[in-house]
Amino acid sequence: MYLVNGLNGDLKEGIKILGIACSSFDRLSDKTVTVFGVVFRGSELLEGVLKTTITVDGEDATEKIIEMIEKSSHKKQLKLIITRGVTIAGFNYIDMQKIIKKTSLPVISVVDHQPNMDDIKQALENLPQSEKRLDVILNSGPIKEVKTSPKEEPVYVQSIGLEKKTISDLLVKITKVGRMPEPIRVARLIATAKSTD
Amino acid sequence: MYLVNGLNGDLKEGIKILGIACSSFDRLSDKTVTVFGVVFRGSELLEGVLKTTITVDGEDATEKIIEMIEKSSHKKQLKLIITRGVTIAGFNYIDMQKIIKKTSLPVISVVDHQPNMDDIKQALENLPQSEKRLDVILNSGPIKEVKTSPKEEPVYVQSIGLEKKTISDLLVKITKVGRMPEPIRVARLIATAKSTD
Repeated sequence: MYLVNGLNGDLKEGIKILGIACSSFDRLSDKTVTVFGVVFRGSELLEGVLKTTITVDGEDATEKIIEMIEKSSHKKQLKLIITRGVTIAGFNYIDMQKIIKKTSLPVISVVDHQPNMDDIKQALENLPQSEKRLDVILNSGPIKEVKTSPKEEPVYVQSIGLEKKTISDLLVKITKVGRMPEPIRVARLIATAKSTD
Repeated sequence: MYLVNGLNGDLKEGIKILGIACSSFDRLSDKTVTVFGVVFRGSELLEGVLKTTITVDGEDATEKIIEMIEKSSHKKQLKLIITRGVTIAGFNYIDMQKIIKKTSLPVISVVDHQPNMDDIKQALENLPQSEKRLDVILNSGPIKEVKTSPKEEPVYVQSIGLEKKTISDLLVKITKVGRMPEPIRVARLIATAKSTD
């Protein structure tokens, strides 16, 4: 396992975070989907918006996310990446270990429901490279339940090399409304913007 | 002139505002451009993102903006519309009087430089309906200089039926960084998101 040096001490309230979320898509007709990355200063200030295109159920998500970070003018100030799940654009997978290795940034996956591994395994069976996909998902660390707001249901978190308390302390600080941390809540709002045409 | 009843009293810090901004485009190759509307609670909370398509140098901006408002789930709570200028998507024009009449919402145009009416008149000459376009622009109220942040240059504001002090008091409250009010700053960040593909 690749551990990020000195990470825990850096996860303070006002750090610069890249929150990544996927647009809605139709599996039958859409081959690719737009993924948005928002650069947030803690939970308070939106500093940048990036976007990329990822293949639905493909295998390019990790590479595209690394490219997004490398090309961002905020790259040097980024301290953390938060994703909505370890899969994106359907069952395209986010290889946390590879992202950590390439960018030296920690990655936290946050979802609002307990992932059902049996369902995931079954869905993967119909896709090419199903074993590799499952390996990457299983290598994203154990699923941890974290309460980000006293009045809300918990979120479910995966990460590599970060203590549960470190994650929990940070997510509480950067959750403004509901239970999703602000960089992910805003990334999702942007990614799913409705067209009024 | 169509005046909005009881508006001034409503322009408080935490009101729901629609900020509208246009994506970048290439006049030679792009016939339409995506325009984003962000729903902001004051300067603090992004509550929704909408988008529509507007014709470059066309005449559909007013109608598309009204449609955006009518179709938004936030419609009933909206108290104000802020645009970046009285033209959008090139010299497509925003007819404030029509928007006020249809939605009963006040409109404030905010730009970061003093509009040069001679340049605008000259540019309009090459477009169909140039007189109508100019009329609409001239009917958006006088250009007022407003200081939104003590350390920054002023912004230039147009609106119908709102006192300069009312506008100034509000814009100061909803400007977080730089000199552009937060709903417009964020709308522009989203609209001009760079693709890292």
